[in-house]
Amino acid sequence: MKKISLLGATGSIGIQTLDIIRNQSNDFELVACSAGRNIDELYKIILEFKPKLVSVAGKEEAEKLTSLGIPSQIKVLYGEEGLIEVAVHEDSTILVNAVVGSVGLVPTMKAIQNGKTIALANKETLVTAGHIVMAEAEKYGVSILPVDSEHSAIYQCLNGENPNEIHKLIITASGGSFRDKTRDQLKDVTIEDALNHPNWSMGAKITIDSATMMNKGLEVIEAHWLFNMPYEKIDVVLHRESVIHSMIEFDDGSVMAQLGTPDMRVPIAYALNYPSRKPITNHKPLDLIKFGTLHFEEMDFNRFKCLDYAYQAGKVGGSLPTVLNAANEEAVAAFLQNKISFLQIENLIENALEKHNVISKPSLEEIRNIDEQTRQFVSSLIK
Amino acid sequence: MKKISLLGATGSIGIQTLDIIRNQSNDFELVACSAGRNIDELYKIILEFKPKLVSVAGKEEAEKLTSLGIPSQIKVLYGEEGLIEVAVHEDSTILVNAVVGSVGLVPTMKAIQNGKTIALANKETLVTAGHIVMAEAEKYGVSILPVDSEHSAIYQCLNGENPNEIHKLIITASGGSFRDKTRDQLKDVTIEDALNHPNWSMGAKITIDSATMMNKGLEVIEAHWLFNMPYEKIDVVLHRESVIHSMIEFDDGSVMAQLGTPDMRVPIAYALNYPSRKPITNHKPLDLIKFGTLHFEEMDFNRFKCLDYAYQAGKVGGSLPTVLNAANEEAVAAFLQNKISFLQIENLIENALEKHNVISKPSLEEIRNIDEQTRQFVSSLIK
Repeated sequence: MKKISLLGATGSIGIQTLDIIRNQSNDFELVACSAGRNIDELYKIILEFKPKLVSVAGKEEAEKLTSLGIPSQIKVLYGEEGLIEVAVHEDSTILVNAVVGSVGLVPTMKAIQNGKTIALANKETLVTAGHIVMAEAEKYGVSILPVDSEHSAIYQCLNGENPNEIHKLIITASGGSFRDKTRDQLKDVTIEDALNHPNWSMGAKITIDSATMMNKGLEVIEAHWLFNMPYEKIDVVLHRESVIHSMIEFDDGSVMAQLGTPDMRVPIAYALNYPSRKPITNHKPLDLIKFGTLHFEEMDFNRFKCLDYAYQAGKVGGSLPTVLNAANEEAVAAFLQNKISFLQIENLIENALEKHNVISKPSLEEIRNIDEQTRQFVSSLIK
Repeated sequence: MKKISLLGATGSIGIQTLDIIRNQSNDFELVACSAGRNIDELYKIILEFKPKLVSVAGKEEAEKLTSLGIPSQIKVLYGEEGLIEVAVHEDSTILVNAVVGSVGLVPTMKAIQNGKTIALANKETLVTAGHIVMAEAEKYGVSILPVDSEHSAIYQCLNGENPNEIHKLIITASGGSFRDKTRDQLKDVTIEDALNHPNWSMGAKITIDSATMMNKGLEVIEAHWLFNMPYEKIDVVLHRESVIHSMIEFDDGSVMAQLGTPDMRVPIAYALNYPSRKPITNHKPLDLIKFGTLHFEEMDFNRFKCLDYAYQAGKVGGSLPTVLNAANEEAVAAFLQNKISFLQIENLIENALEKHNVISKPSLEEIRNIDEQTRQFVSSLIK
């Protein structure tokens, strides 16, 4: 029985993680979880899974939850302190980090320092502080198991292989909601258009990131850290069907790939069950004959500027990926609040990157400051 | 330095094996090899690789070779005895078995009994006597490394995985020379048409087997034995581009695949270097963007009767796969000699299968007899 802490229980990955825990209940138990402001959903989770500890966004949400009448032995916390308590709960051996954004960084660090295995869906953690997180994981002998479908695919392709024999990583990209639009056609797109992803049903932030292609950029930086791979050895290829989740080309010319239907429960279950593979209830198996055709196209870096920014920020390194990520989070939030247009997301990120004076090897404290300063700068451009 | 015995040095796989030995000369040395009747080619091989022992088809070929003036310290043998001596040469640690047909069986058995690692391109060995060969390999603790691109792909997909978690094997088939012809259009096809394979450059027998789809049938039976997999868990899918060489679907819904350009040197080098992967000279890497699209279609068992026969023979088991293979070898040889039409290949195999009284678990002696009787029976139908 593996005991699990889950950050972001009411989000898309959180809900699917709970589905795995529910269906493989002989293997997994939820001991602690966090949610933001969706207290009604968290209340249902508490009744079903009976965790020992929950954490919510703030004091107000904590009071609302308590007023709903949850069992008295369940501890209720809030804020960053609450997230950390969930992440390091003494009973848990695995932290599933499924929060969105750089808020996931500190709880991940604390969980690593407490020897928890990390199932990481929060890519912003590695984007913003990859050098610190990976060094800490190595220091504490902790495994970081990717939950992103692309990184899970690469992780699976590495099974039984020698990482020194990797020639390059090939990350696939569906192209997101606007893959068939020209830059000119992007001027007037709406939030609703952007949230309509062709293949995957995901949370709002990652769906917008897919439409701007920043999601793929963040994944490139994540792959750089997870697999210790120079950016020159990470390719992105446009693959509309999202059937091949990603690939590794090895030195002998062989390409290993992982394929599947777009069901995030597969990489979640893979991380939780690792190194075993267990059947997933109601999973629709891949039917290549039904697909019939798989397409592969070159990625256009002029069309998808955010991907270009991400490669640039990654290659420069230091504190620049922190700026990339913080600017993107602020800009996407503003777009989702209808404050800016879709193409302004790119402009705001570009402005933030240009303004920043790069620090090499920033500390955690410096990263937090730069993250905050970048958000303020981007906000100031919006208002 | 790994020392290699090579059966079938002048055939397609043999020549490509020599190319790997030539280009990775710090890793490999040819100590013994066999050829059939292509003495001029063998002579060149002897001058370049200086093996200690060679074997040819018969006495006549041995005398021809000697008359060409090869170095006196090189031993020349012929016939089955010669094949066996090459297979068990005391210096070699690996046998590459690249002969065509069931003639490869006994040398493989002897090499296993002498503890040699087997790099197996001779699929007929496993088709005709899989139960004996695999049991012997287990008894002597010998690895059988597949050289067929499909089985090499599956072998690679199994790296670091638990074979008990396999849901099914998915073997891809290019469809061969006649994949776009109806059965009616097959009536008048010529040898030249059949030898014109769309993707792979291979020997004559395997190219005809691809056109009849018997090659895929033999591969299904080979996969059954190599991976200890029931026939119900082995699927075949038509995949025109031969880019995905084969796949495994695991219990969790993940599908692992191995991809590459159609270069047989990759699976050969993989078997020779196993478990390492080393770069191959002049290898053209896979460019998925250049391919653009990959297609997958259902396999039509009415259109490709030989595949149906192979599944049937495999499922019945016992001595029936021996009959399938021997009848096919005779029929294909007759077609290549212009004695029968293309569709008669199927008819002859069907006749041989129908006539045979199945023995379960035949001995090596019984297999040799049944192989011989089947060949005589098929010949009698032709003359």
